[in-house]
Amino acid sequence: MDAKEYLMRTSRELDGPIRQYIDDEEPANLIEAARQYPYAGGKRMRPAMVLAAAGAVGGDRSKAVPLAVAVEYIHNFTLVHDDFMDGDRQRRGMTTIHVAYDVPTAILAGDALFAKAFQIIAELDVPDRNMREILKYVTRAVWDLARGQEMDVNNEGRIVSEETYIETIRLKTSVLFAAAAAGGALAGGADDRTVKALHEYAMALGLGFQIFDDYLGIAGDPSKTGKSVGNDIRKGKCTVMVTHAVKNIKDPKVLEEFKGILGNADATEEQVKRARSIMEDAGSIAYGRQLAQEKVTEAISKLDVLAPGEHKEFMIALARYAIDRDV
Amino acid sequence: MDAKEYLMRTSRELDGPIRQYIDDEEPANLIEAARQYPYAGGKRMRPAMVLAAAGAVGGDRSKAVPLAVAVEYIHNFTLVHDDFMDGDRQRRGMTTIHVAYDVPTAILAGDALFAKAFQIIAELDVPDRNMREILKYVTRAVWDLARGQEMDVNNEGRIVSEETYIETIRLKTSVLFAAAAAGGALAGGADDRTVKALHEYAMALGLGFQIFDDYLGIAGDPSKTGKSVGNDIRKGKCTVMVTHAVKNIKDPKVLEEFKGILGNADATEEQVKRARSIMEDAGSIAYGRQLAQEKVTEAISKLDVLAPGEHKEFMIALARYAIDRDV
Repeated sequence: MDAKEYLMRTSRELDGPIRQYIDDEEPANLIEAARQYPYAGGKRMRPAMVLAAAGAVGGDRSKAVPLAVAVEYIHNFTLVHDDFMDGDRQRRGMTTIHVAYDVPTAILAGDALFAKAFQIIAELDVPDRNMREILKYVTRAVWDLARGQEMDVNNEGRIVSEETYIETIRLKTSVLFAAAAAGGALAGGADDRTVKALHEYAMALGLGFQIFDDYLGIAGDPSKTGKSVGNDIRKGKCTVMVTHAVKNIKDPKVLEEFKGILGNADATEEQVKRARSIMEDAGSIAYGRQLAQEKVTEAISKLDVLAPGEHKEFMIALARYAIDRDV
Repeated sequence: MDAKEYLMRTSRELDGPIRQYIDDEEPANLIEAARQYPYAGGKRMRPAMVLAAAGAVGGDRSKAVPLAVAVEYIHNFTLVHDDFMDGDRQRRGMTTIHVAYDVPTAILAGDALFAKAFQIIAELDVPDRNMREILKYVTRAVWDLARGQEMDVNNEGRIVSEETYIETIRLKTSVLFAAAAAGGALAGGADDRTVKALHEYAMALGLGFQIFDDYLGIAGDPSKTGKSVGNDIRKGKCTVMVTHAVKNIKDPKVLEEFKGILGNADATEEQVKRARSIMEDAGSIAYGRQLAQEKVTEAISKLDVLAPGEHKEFMIALARYAIDRDV
């Protein structure tokens, strides 16, 4: 099973449905702005998770399609707001909403996508009881997403504990993956034990995915990742590797040197290389990779509740892909 | 029945419940910011509408209390975002969130209140089917609120048609009142016909309320309303009175003079008085008051479906109060 191929297939499958829920209403500029991110494509990993979970529990995948769209709208809502907060001007090759339109339109387009997602959930063609359970998972996730983004803002430029960093990425990344998996399973009619297992799978997978992303930011090939290796170092992003380094660098002088480079927006290429080599010597880069692997192993172990099949295979393949990619 | 007294009573009744849903979680600054508006009090008209509707249909009002809190959180979420968009620095005697904290915290506190409201709805102690219907009304309202605020931003400094203005205030003000009434009725176990009637009541009431607010902005006593009479004129707010004036001023020179004052931020007191007297001569101020009265009459007529009782009396009194107040 090729996870990327499955993702491309589900992304195409969603191209139509994703355009079915935002009607032509007034004001046209808000509707147009709200449509921009969801219509633009992207990996659509979260909706793929919804569909895979519904299929993996033996449910009717087609009943989960509207939920998949809702989850993607929620992801897009957070992107629109985050891009404004982070001052990002480009996404998916397009100008971000607060730049292309204006700040109020970006805030309102995000709010509108958020509302639309829950309008779709209210209309899901699943038993009322399941709809209520889905709603609980998804609303909890959105609450947590706001907390995660605020923690991320708060963490900026500070060295936080590994625990705090993991909690931040759990809230920022994992909770929506986990709600997608649990919601898909519920739409597919799974029992509580299976729903819980898939929730835990996606929670661990999200952590593994993000930790490996950070690893690629330091150890990856910039020509493939499209990110400069110095990016996270110059921003002072406090990944698990940085926390590990700060704890494990033995020589106080080296530690001081490392801290001097970290978060220095004007650090030279030479300094960035030096910081990386310090982290390498402290075993921190290997540690990051290893932690990502552990999370993925944990994720896969949760899938034992599932009967064999194509969708379970995808969920395993996606977990393996999370830590075996160069972009 | 004294509507204000009933409002004060329900506002006190909600003081406890409104503090029960936002737990101490990380990050503390986000939680604190999210709590500021709902904890601060205010008229709490929307949650009063929820409770009144639940009581008026003969339901158990206590089952509607969490929904009342959710509706107030939604109202507060829109206030937090709108205050930032409108650049307002004060609300209810406190510094607004984007000023007291920062812009990301204001956006996220709004998003968090939004999410929390739907978490509460997911947990409502009402039959699953009713919960789903409540969710449909409330999500539609939030979608419409975003559209209304965007239309308001778009309208700024332009003379729009009465139809456009009415649609804007319907979306900005009425839809959440209407969802509150319909939701309260559903929480109280009302049949579809009653739910629909209360929805229509609150929709018309919201319009009457806002149109009378605009009337007070021109004809009210500034020492009571706390708003300078010139406010709306200097901002060029296109109320139904302004639209009426533009249509009904016969003398082209006077019309030109009126348009020259409208939206002129530096208009003198003398000019503001002149604009007001032009509107008075055109019958526009009387027209605004009359339109508000018509909406309120329409609202009250919808209440015939209800059996007599205290909560019905409040709904009638609230409608009368909407057009019989000086603040």
